[in-house]
Amino acid sequence: MTSDWRATLIPPRSGRGWRLRAGQLLRITDVEGSQSGDLFAVAADDLDDGQSSGRTFDMGGTIRLTTGSVLYSRRSRPLLRILDDQVGVHDMLYAPCSQEMFELQYGVTGPHPNCFDNLAAALAAFGVPPSAVTIAFNFFMHVVIGPDGRLKIEAPVSAAGQHMTFAAERDVFIAVTSCATLSANAGGARPVRVEVAG
Amino acid sequence: MTSDWRATLIPPRSGRGWRLRAGQLLRITDVEGSQSGDLFAVAADDLDDGQSSGRTFDMGGTIRLTTGSVLYSRRSRPLLRILDDQVGVHDMLYAPCSQEMFELQYGVTGPHPNCFDNLAAALAAFGVPPSAVTIAFNFFMHVVIGPDGRLKIEAPVSAAGQHMTFAAERDVFIAVTSCATLSANAGGARPVRVEVAG
Repeated sequence: MTSDWRATLIPPRSGRGWRLRAGQLLRITDVEGSQSGDLFAVAADDLDDGQSSGRTFDMGGTIRLTTGSVLYSRRSRPLLRILDDQVGVHDMLYAPCSQEMFELQYGVTGPHPNCFDNLAAALAAFGVPPSAVTIAFNFFMHVVIGPDGRLKIEAPVSAAGQHMTFAAERDVFIAVTSCATLSANAGGARPVRVEVAG
Repeated sequence: MTSDWRATLIPPRSGRGWRLRAGQLLRITDVEGSQSGDLFAVAADDLDDGQSSGRTFDMGGTIRLTTGSVLYSRRSRPLLRILDDQVGVHDMLYAPCSQEMFELQYGVTGPHPNCFDNLAAALAAFGVPPSAVTIAFNFFMHVVIGPDGRLKIEAPVSAAGQHMTFAAERDVFIAVTSCATLSANAGGARPVRVEVAG
């Protein structure tokens, strides 16, 4: 199966979308290292049944997702399963970065590339409305939770060439971005590679 | 202002909805003690702009919400501010309990009262579709996060008569439930009281 991986390079601060059939694989590689991004999937047979952090935490009993973890939909249906994970540090607490976030938290005054718009644009080709993108799985994003619950964003621990692989548990529409927020990516903005097989 | 609090008793395993104008107050009281519930608000001027855990965590920099914390919308707009909080232990990680959750995680085979359906039904009167209810603020719900990220639900620390008060930061539609999940409520199902003023 690995002979037919089809690779897409996602340039810095952008996103791409795919339709995955049940059983297909999607692999994300941090090409240069220290780069995170966002992933959002929605069931192809019900665009209201998108990825849910709260349901994923509940079904798995943990907020730390890695090999073996399943990303669940709002209606508790499995969307994606993590088959392997060379990094092991990800986040599913934060919403995707957005235009409003850059304006309110970083003082940006003009349009700024952001993961929410990139996810929404990539999924629009499949008829998924922006309102469906309510959250994301932030692969390689490194968030430390203090004992008092305070959150601190640190540099990703991912090294160049490290990857993680998801299997589609059902037919899904899925988008992947390379994150545009410097503070989450060791001060840089780099590409990520996505490969699809099966 | 306290002279015109209008009280509603929310029976066990049910929910109610309100339209709050900006500046109005909503107080939730644990009548008997050890009872949690769910709250979901959406901006009255944009039903796609509902309460977001991920945005709330990001804007506040913490997953522990209490007096002074603001619940933000998906578009980073303030919806509700916590004015006072006699309990101090709440959750915003878990999705509301749902029919699917009771079937998959508790082996229930028939219809079971649940917070998702109760929130959705209470908001339907205002034209809010069920798809808008993507998450909830789980007041008085006691969730312990282990050092490995694993989640454990414990009995609420709320005592009979303890309350918390929210101020509407803008016009919102809001629903409040008394949670139907025994494991989150010390094995019982009790009413909560909601009072609205202003």
